[in-house]
Amino acid sequence: MNSNYSQISTAFQNISGPSKKTRNTSADVAQLAGVSLATVSRAFDPASKMRPQTREKVLNAAKQLKYTPDAIAKSLTSHSTNIIAIIMQDVINPFYSKILKDFSLHLQKYGKQLLYFYLDSPENLHNLIYQVLQYRVEGIIISSVTLTERVIEDFIDYGVPVVLFNRYVNIPQVQAVCCDNIQAGRECADYLFSKGYRTFAFIGGSDEALTSFDRKNGFLSRLMERGIHNIVIADSDFTYDSGYHAFEQLFQNNSAYPQAVFCASDIICAGVMDCIRFKYKLRIPEDIALVGFDDIQLATYIPYQITTFEQPTNLMIQKACDLILNPPPVPQIPNLTLFPCKLKIRTSS
Amino acid sequence: MNSNYSQISTAFQNISGPSKKTRNTSADVAQLAGVSLATVSRAFDPASKMRPQTREKVLNAAKQLKYTPDAIAKSLTSHSTNIIAIIMQDVINPFYSKILKDFSLHLQKYGKQLLYFYLDSPENLHNLIYQVLQYRVEGIIISSVTLTERVIEDFIDYGVPVVLFNRYVNIPQVQAVCCDNIQAGRECADYLFSKGYRTFAFIGGSDEALTSFDRKNGFLSRLMERGIHNIVIADSDFTYDSGYHAFEQLFQNNSAYPQAVFCASDIICAGVMDCIRFKYKLRIPEDIALVGFDDIQLATYIPYQITTFEQPTNLMIQKACDLILNPPPVPQIPNLTLFPCKLKIRTSS
Repeated sequence: MNSNYSQISTAFQNISGPSKKTRNTSADVAQLAGVSLATVSRAFDPASKMRPQTREKVLNAAKQLKYTPDAIAKSLTSHSTNIIAIIMQDVINPFYSKILKDFSLHLQKYGKQLLYFYLDSPENLHNLIYQVLQYRVEGIIISSVTLTERVIEDFIDYGVPVVLFNRYVNIPQVQAVCCDNIQAGRECADYLFSKGYRTFAFIGGSDEALTSFDRKNGFLSRLMERGIHNIVIADSDFTYDSGYHAFEQLFQNNSAYPQAVFCASDIICAGVMDCIRFKYKLRIPEDIALVGFDDIQLATYIPYQITTFEQPTNLMIQKACDLILNPPPVPQIPNLTLFPCKLKIRTSS
Repeated sequence: MNSNYSQISTAFQNISGPSKKTRNTSADVAQLAGVSLATVSRAFDPASKMRPQTREKVLNAAKQLKYTPDAIAKSLTSHSTNIIAIIMQDVINPFYSKILKDFSLHLQKYGKQLLYFYLDSPENLHNLIYQVLQYRVEGIIISSVTLTERVIEDFIDYGVPVVLFNRYVNIPQVQAVCCDNIQAGRECADYLFSKGYRTFAFIGGSDEALTSFDRKNGFLSRLMERGIHNIVIADSDFTYDSGYHAFEQLFQNNSAYPQAVFCASDIICAGVMDCIRFKYKLRIPEDIALVGFDDIQLATYIPYQITTFEQPTNLMIQKACDLILNPPPVPQIPNLTLFPCKLKIRTSS
């Protein structure tokens, strides 16, 4: 304890320890608040509409009696734990930390909570899903994870709805919600072509990340339709540093640099941009134009001002939650719901 | 369904729906794998050490029988759900999204999972903790949340360990883990003073955020000890834009600009920096030196290169987890564990 903080918790030294946990019942609360049992139950369900005064009366009585409903015990009879699992890998990417926040906020409205599983490496997904299933979760959301169909297939028979977010697999029982990455790639090609650029590069994550793979394929296929074939491709691991080094490699290995570069994320794009202007002293967009993806906050910072694609994350999350909360009774084809992205033009192109 | 994705899930149209969930028991798994019941149980506990071949044999048998342990049912007898709640507000700040990831990774090693609660506004913390308690969580971690002692006091009697991360309260039952923000503020004052700067500003979050409050107080008190009193203070809401505008206000309201500015976070610092150089065309550090806090990735990006304080987050998270998993049997004084920060000097100062 540093003396700077000495005012903290010295006045309470004689206080007694936490009292033993005793559980009053909802009947005790109903009696004290003078309401019905059903009202007590509804007061604790954030999705239930009721008069704020009534809710407050019930919550005050509950507080006095140290009562909370027991979601865990209830789950054994109702088969509903109100827990949804979310598995994520790349939560440091601000795009995905926003996704996590928005999923949580949206599901909390329905009285559902997120059990958060961080995946340290794709090989561990299989074991992790076993951990997930032990919690009788009502659904599993998987996002920003490199996955194979084999891993998912193992869990289909457990009957727990699985929804993929910005990933998809060829299994009809597994619904997926994505932004239309292929179409965005095509739109990027059209946009850069219309600006007069004729030589191009794509700097992505690895092909294992479907988002990057689809953005690349849309971009390349549309450029090829326009007669452009020699597109330089480089990989990164979705970080600033790897974007920087990917462009460095690309620059050193090619006789001429491209007029325009499409990056699979804004963070990659920031690294590429800084390599272009600080290492090679080239101008953006005059020498090289750049387009990113995700429209994270960084894309709006003055030194960057990245032209990028905004994903309609609110609509996507709402759809994913609908699919988790009301899963289709039989496997549905198509099992992929796509949302269009929006090109936001800034000064990098 | 966009035609670009037409290859997805058309080959499976005749597949049958998910089969009904049936639960085999661990005895069935033990028999099939030819191991003891205890071995089955340990195979599902990631913290249990055992031969990889044995674990694989058990997991394969379990997979064949579609068996997973039922953590929820088990919790009713063992009174241990293996669920730790984490309540966060500012998860978009990359500092806190890393904290979330690291907590999850650390607790998963002990077979504990994080139930994630996003707090949309401080007024809702009270209701949110009621939601948390319903899940019989074994502990509650509260971080990046503005809180009052009154809110926490309500929950002490439930006997669930509460650990605050980068927050603290004057309640001995509630342990807290923080970096030593006051000391870091003092060190920042000494560092900038030693570089020859004599006029200063502090741009923080609001005083309700204890981290910002302590950084400011350390900074101010040390400067005052050195005879410097007219320190300009401005508030932001911890975002880039609010940092930008805070400096704009500060510049317009004062006859001279300060030689050095200490910002309560790197993101605020980025906004301040861009206002200084792009709006007012001043040089960093020649005209104004800057120091941030947190050492997020952005602080290393070439256009920023922010001198900042690194928090020893690994040690802090380890300590917080220890306190949650092995809470002190009686309230402990002091209830605050402080970790020193490390000044990382870059080109902004």
